[in-house]
Amino acid sequence: MIYAPAPDDPRLPPVRINLLSDTQTQPSAAMREAMARAPVGDEQIGADPTVNALCARVADLLGKEAAVFMASGTICNIAATLAHCRAGDEILAHETSHVVSLEGCTHAALGGFQIHPLPGAGGQFSAETLRSALHRPDRHQARQSLVCVEQTTNLGGGTVWNALTLRQIAELARANGLATHMDGARLMNASVASGISPRQIAAGWDSVWIDFSKGLGAPLGAVLAGSRDFIDEVWLWKQRLGGSLRQAGICAAACLYALDHNVGRLAEDHANARLLAAGLSQIDGVSAAPPETNLVYFDVSGAAWSKQAIVDALRARGVLISILSDRLRACTHLDVTPAMIQEALAVIRNVVEGDTTARIGRSAQI
Amino acid sequence: MIYAPAPDDPRLPPVRINLLSDTQTQPSAAMREAMARAPVGDEQIGADPTVNALCARVADLLGKEAAVFMASGTICNIAATLAHCRAGDEILAHETSHVVSLEGCTHAALGGFQIHPLPGAGGQFSAETLRSALHRPDRHQARQSLVCVEQTTNLGGGTVWNALTLRQIAELARANGLATHMDGARLMNASVASGISPRQIAAGWDSVWIDFSKGLGAPLGAVLAGSRDFIDEVWLWKQRLGGSLRQAGICAAACLYALDHNVGRLAEDHANARLLAAGLSQIDGVSAAPPETNLVYFDVSGAAWSKQAIVDALRARGVLISILSDRLRACTHLDVTPAMIQEALAVIRNVVEGDTTARIGRSAQI
Amino acid sequence: MIYAPAPDDPRLPPVRINLLSDTQTQPSAAMREAMARAPVGDEQIGADPTVNALCARVADLLGKEAAVFMASGTICNIAATLAHCRAGDEILAHETSHVVSLEGCTHAALGGFQIHPLPGAGGQFSAETLRSALHRPDRHQARQSLVCVEQTTNLGGGTVWNALTLRQIAELARANGLATHMDGARLMNASVASGISPRQIAAGWDSVWIDFSKGLGAPLGAVLAGSRDFIDEVWLWKQRLGGSLRQAGICAAACLYALDHNVGRLAEDHANARLLAAGLSQIDGVSAAPPETNLVYFDVSGAAWSKQAIVDALRARGVLISILSDRLRACTHLDVTPAMIQEALAVIRNVVEGDTTARIGRSAQI
Amino acid sequence: MIYAPAPDDPRLPPVRINLLSDTQTQPSAAMREAMARAPVGDEQIGADPTVNALCARVADLLGKEAAVFMASGTICNIAATLAHCRAGDEILAHETSHVVSLEGCTHAALGGFQIHPLPGAGGQFSAETLRSALHRPDRHQARQSLVCVEQTTNLGGGTVWNALTLRQIAELARANGLATHMDGARLMNASVASGISPRQIAAGWDSVWIDFSKGLGAPLGAVLAGSRDFIDEVWLWKQRLGGSLRQAGICAAACLYALDHNVGRLAEDHANARLLAAGLSQIDGVSAAPPETNLVYFDVSGAAWSKQAIVDALRARGVLISILSDRLRACTHLDVTPAMIQEALAVIRNVVEGDTTARIGRSAQI
Repeated sequence: MIYAPAPDDPRLPPVRINLLSDTQTQPSAAMREAMARAPVGDEQIGADPTVNALCARVADLLGKEAAVFMASGTICNIAATLAHCRAGDEILAHETSHVVSLEGCTHAALGGFQIHPLPGAGGQFSAETLRSALHRPDRHQARQSLVCVEQTTNLGGGTVWNALTLRQIAELARANGLATHMDGARLMNASVASGISPRQIAAGWDSVWIDFSKGLGAPLGAVLAGSRDFIDEVWLWKQRLGGSLRQAGICAAACLYALDHNVGRLAEDHANARLLAAGLSQIDGVSAAPPETNLVYFDVSGAAWSKQAIVDALRARGVLISILSDRLRACTHLDVTPAMIQEALAVIRNVVEGDTTARIGRSAQI
Repeated sequence: MIYAPAPDDPRLPPVRINLLSDTQTQPSAAMREAMARAPVGDEQIGADPTVNALCARVADLLGKEAAVFMASGTICNIAATLAHCRAGDEILAHETSHVVSLEGCTHAALGGFQIHPLPGAGGQFSAETLRSALHRPDRHQARQSLVCVEQTTNLGGGTVWNALTLRQIAELARANGLATHMDGARLMNASVASGISPRQIAAGWDSVWIDFSKGLGAPLGAVLAGSRDFIDEVWLWKQRLGGSLRQAGICAAACLYALDHNVGRLAEDHANARLLAAGLSQIDGVSAAPPETNLVYFDVSGAAWSKQAIVDALRARGVLISILSDRLRACTHLDVTPAMIQEALAVIRNVVEGDTTARIGRSAQI
Repeated sequence: MIYAPAPDDPRLPPVRINLLSDTQTQPSAAMREAMARAPVGDEQIGADPTVNALCARVADLLGKEAAVFMASGTICNIAATLAHCRAGDEILAHETSHVVSLEGCTHAALGGFQIHPLPGAGGQFSAETLRSALHRPDRHQARQSLVCVEQTTNLGGGTVWNALTLRQIAELARANGLATHMDGARLMNASVASGISPRQIAAGWDSVWIDFSKGLGAPLGAVLAGSRDFIDEVWLWKQRLGGSLRQAGICAAACLYALDHNVGRLAEDHANARLLAAGLSQIDGVSAAPPETNLVYFDVSGAAWSKQAIVDALRARGVLISILSDRLRACTHLDVTPAMIQEALAVIRNVVEGDTTARIGRSAQI
Repeated sequence: MIYAPAPDDPRLPPVRINLLSDTQTQPSAAMREAMARAPVGDEQIGADPTVNALCARVADLLGKEAAVFMASGTICNIAATLAHCRAGDEILAHETSHVVSLEGCTHAALGGFQIHPLPGAGGQFSAETLRSALHRPDRHQARQSLVCVEQTTNLGGGTVWNALTLRQIAELARANGLATHMDGARLMNASVASGISPRQIAAGWDSVWIDFSKGLGAPLGAVLAGSRDFIDEVWLWKQRLGGSLRQAGICAAACLYALDHNVGRLAEDHANARLLAAGLSQIDGVSAAPPETNLVYFDVSGAAWSKQAIVDALRARGVLISILSDRLRACTHLDVTPAMIQEALAVIRNVVEGDTTARIGRSAQI
C-alpha cells in the first residue's frame, strides 16, 4: 500500500509539519539566489558551464571518470539499466528496493528487463544471498547482467549498507560478469551517518548517482557517474528518454549550492529522526525502530485506528506523513526543526491515543 | 537448478527408460501414417484443411469461439500475453509457474511485461492471495492486466487446480478488469485425472491452450483458443513471432490422431506415476508425495549422494530423469510401461542405496 | 549530416552571434527574477502551484482539457506516442520531421513503433498523401495508429502548416481510427506568423505541446496537452521515463513569464530571419528561400568552399550556425538583433567570397 | 497493396493452376514417405538426429560453423536481428525487402529496431548507396548495426544479387562495424540460376538462412546458419519466440529429402517463369520483364480492367495469382508444369482481352 493525503488539499488546513518526504524541501532564499545568478548554456550539447562544473565535481566526489546531469533519480536508474543491460536480461535487486516497487515497471516496459527480487533484513541482501540467486547461462532463464543496491534503503528503513557487504557483492558480481549499479538517492545521508566518504561507498561499483532533490534541498536534479564509456552510452538513452535539457545550469546551480551548504547538516536530520523515533516508541500501540538516517518507519498495528485513519487525522491537524507498505513513514529534512518534531509527537500521541474521526483525503504519491 | 543428462550422449549407453519428460514421446506408427496421409494447404492464409479441422475441434473441446495452431506451447503463452497486455503491464502468476521460471524472460524481453509471482502450495494460489496482490491504479506501479494459471502445475507437482478456486480467480480477475489466461500444457491430464471436461475446466477463462507434444504423443503442436477477436489479435503476434506456418497439416494430423486415440490412456500414465511414487517412498532417503497426474517429484536429500550424482548414475544405467529446482522429477508417458517403472525403481534403489560414482554428462534442458 | 562547431570551444574566440538554434537563448534578468520568486511544491504529486498554473494556462491556450509539464520537447513526443500507441504500431509522419530524424530511434527503441515517412514539400504532406499511405488491417503490416505533424516544420524550413491541410489530415485520421499528435515545438512561431490562434491551430488534434526553451526564451520546459484520459495515461509514461519532477515551479515560472512577455516579439525574429535570407541571397554562390518564421535554411553549393569549411570559418569569426542535412541553417531568436544580422551577413559574405581556411571544431548537436 | 483471392473459397471452383506462391507446394508422396520414416528426438535439447543431420548439412552447404532449425523464414529473420542488434539499433535493408514490408513491424515491435530503407533497382542497393546512408555515431540518430539483403529479391522481381555487389557490401559493413545478414528465402534459386554455389553466395556474410517451404517443396522448415557464438545467441531468442520444437525431425526429413531431390529441378521453374513472361508480353496491355528466377511480375496498367478485377476473374477460372504493390505476381514451382503455363496464358489472355466481370473473393496473404 502506498498512501498519503495531498499536501495542498484546499478543503484542509495547510500542512505545518511536512514529514511526507525529503523531496518536499523548499529551496532556500540563498539557493534561489545562486540559481538566479548561474551562468548557463545548452546542456544537450555539453555547453552549460554550471552543469559541467557540477558533473565534474560529482564525478570526483564519487571517484568516477565521468558524470551526467539528470532531472530526476528515476531517470538515473532507467538510463543506467538501459546502458548496462539488453532486452531479456535480469537485474538482481532487493525485493523492497525502489527499482522493484516504485518505478512503474519501467525496466520491463522500456528495457525488456526482468528484476529478480532478493530477500534480506533492512532492505539489504548478503553476498551469499546473491550467490545463491546466480545461475549458469541457460536458455530457459534470463541472462543475469546487473546487480543493483539502493543506498540508503528506502523501504528497508533508511539503513546504511554495510561497507563489507557492498564490497563483497561488487566483487561477486564482477567475478560472474555482472555489472553493478548503486541507486544513491540518499547516499549522502549514508555517508554522513557512517562517516564513510562517498568515494569509498561507491568504490567498486560501476555506476552510481546521487539525488539533490531529497535531503540536499535542491528543487530538482541528480547526477549519474561511471566510466567514460558508460556515460557515453547513457547519453544515448538520456536523449531517447527525453532527458536532454537546455539551460539546465539554473537547476545545477542549486545542486552546487547544496554540495557547499547542505551536506554536513544532514546530521541534524538524523538526530531529528532519532528524536522522533524515541518519542513514538513511548506512545501506546506504536513501535519504531531506532533510525540510522532520516527515515522513521513505525508500526501502529497496536493502535485502535487504521493506518489510513491515523494518517488522515494527522493531515487534518497539519502534520503530513505517509503509509508505505504496512507501516507509516515520517521523513526528516532541512525544513523540519526539533521543535516541529516535538509538536508532531504531541499531535500523533493525541491522535493515536484519542478519539479520532478518520478523514479521507485524496491520495498522493511519495 | 535445472539439470538433465543428455539422452543421446554417445559416450553413454542408450537410454532404455526415458522419464525425462512427456515431451520425449515418439510418434507411433499409426500416428506417422496419419501424418503421411494428411491433406494440407497453406496454414498462413487459412487454407490448410487439417489445421482448420484441428482448430475447430479444439475450440469446441474448450468451449471457445476460435482457435489457432501453434508449433509449441511457449509461443501460445507469449502470443497470448502479447495479445492481452501492453508494455508496462503486470501478469499475476504462481511463482513456480512455467511463464515465470522456464520461458527465458520472454514476457519482459519481447512484451515489456512484469510478472508478479504469487505464493501457494502445490503451484496453486487462492483467490484470496490474488486479491491481496491487486492494487489500485497508481503511477508508481505496473498496470495489472492478466492472471495466468498453469494446468496442471508443473513445478507445483503436476497438481490439478481446484475447480472452485479456478472459478473464483476468474471471477475476481474479471471484476477487476483483468484478463485470464490458462496455460493448459497438461490440461488433458487434469481433465482425465479429475473427470472434469476440458470445456468445464476452461469455462470463464479468456484464453486457454492445450499441448499435443506432451502426454498426447504428437511430435509438435499446440492449439490456443479464445474469442474471435482475441484470436485475430493473436494472429498479428503469431506473424511477428515467426510462428505462421505453411503445410502444417502434416503436424496437425498427429494432433487429431492424438485426440482420437491418446486422451483416455493418460489414466495409465497417472497409474504408472502412482506406482513409481509408491515404490520411491520405500527407498531409504527418498520421499515422494502421491502424484495427482503424471509428474513424480521426489526428494533425495536423505540420500548419501548429491542430486546430480544420482541423476548421472541413473543415466549411466539407462534411466533418464531430471533435477528441477531442489527435487528430482520423473515423468510418465505413453512410451513408459508398468514393467519399466518396476525396472526403474530397482535401478534407483540400487543407485541411492549403493556405492555410486557420479558421472557428469552434458546438461540438457527439460 | 548534422554538424555544428561547439559554442564553448576554449581554443576559439567566443561566439558573438549565436544563430545555432533558438534553444540557445539565455534567460533574461526579469525571467530569472520570476524564477527566483516562484512558489513551488512537489510536481510529482500535483502539488506545485506554479506548474499547476502553467498547465492550466496552456491547456486553455490550446483548447484542451488537461496538460502536463515536461522538461523537454522530446519527452513530450515519446510520452505521447507511448500513450497513443502500442508495440507494433505505425506512426505516420513527414520524412524530415523531428520524430523521424532527430530522436535517436526512441519510438522503436522504447515503444516498439515503426515510423512511416511521408513525402511532401516544405516538411508538409497532404491529406491525399496520407490517404495513399493508409492500408487495410493486414497481418503482414504494422497497425497504423497515429499521425504526427511538426509545427512549424524544422527541417522543412520553418514553414507554417496550411490550416486547411491540418484540418483535412485530422479528419482523415479520425475517420480511419488513427489518433493525431502535433509536435508544437515552434507552434507559437506558427501562430504569430499566421495570425491563427494556438487554439485554432490545435483544433481537432488529440495531443499537442509547445516548447518554452526555444524562441520563448525559457531555460527548459514544455507543456503537453490533450484530453483528461490521455494526460492520465501520459503520466504513467512520464513516471516510467523518469520525467516526473519535484519543485519544478522554478522552471515553470520562466514559462509563465515567457507567455506574458515573449510571444508577440517572435515577430521580430521572423523579420530578422527575412532580413538575413534577403541578404544571403545577394551573396555569390548562396541561395536562401524567404523564411516564413525564424529558421533560415540556405544552400551554399555554389560556393567555392565546403559546407563544413564555411561553418568552421564562421565559427572562427564568432558567428555560429549549423549544417542540417544538405543545407546550412541559421536561426533567429530573442538574443539576436537586426544589427547582429547585418554583421553576420558581412562575415558570411567575407567567408564565402573570400579565401577561407577551414577550421574543424568539435562537433556539436543542434 | 497486397491481395490474393483465397485458394479454398467454397463458393468458387477449385484452383487448378496455383501460381500464388512457391509456398503453396504440396509435399510429394516420396517426401511424405521420408517424413514418416524419420528417426526423431527432442529438438529443444539437441536430441533430434534428423534435425541435427539437416543442420550439419546446411551449415556445410553455406560454409558456416553452425546452424539451427526453424519452423519458418520469418523467425529466422527476427531471431537473427534479435541476436545481432539491441534496442535502438538500425538495420539497413532495401526498401522493398521482406523485413521492411512483409513482417508486420516485428523488428520494431519485438526488438526495438528501426529499419533504414535503401533505394535501388530490382530490389538491390549498391555499396555506394549503403556508404551514403552510414553516419558517424550521433546521439540524435539510431546506432547502425546490421545490413540485410534478401536473396533472391522478392518484391524486387526475383533478381539474383550481383556477386561483386554482395562482396562489396559485406566488406563495407565489416569495415564500419556492422554485422551482415542474408535472408536466403530463395537463395537456392539464386544459386541454380547463377551457377554460383550457396557457399560462395554466403561467403563473408555473418548469418544466412535458406527456406525449405518455398521452391524446395517441403511443408515447413528453414535453417539459419552462422558462427557458433551467433547460433548460441539465436537459441536464446528461439526459445523466447516460442520457436523451440520437440520431434521436429518429421519436418526436417522433408528438408533433407528436398536437398537430395529438389534443388537441380529449380531450373525447370525458372524456365517455366521465362515461358510465362514471354507469353504475357504478347498480351495487349500487359508487360513483363524477363525473370531471372521463378517470380514473374507483370504490369497490367495497359489493360481495360483493374488489377483486382483481373486477379478475381482468373481465380474464378481456376488460376490463382496475386497483387503485390502495383503489379501482379505469378510464381512457378514444382507443382507447375509447362502445360499449365500454356493454359494459364490462355486464360489470362482471355480475361485481359475479354469482357471480364470482376469477382471479389476474400483476401488472402502471400
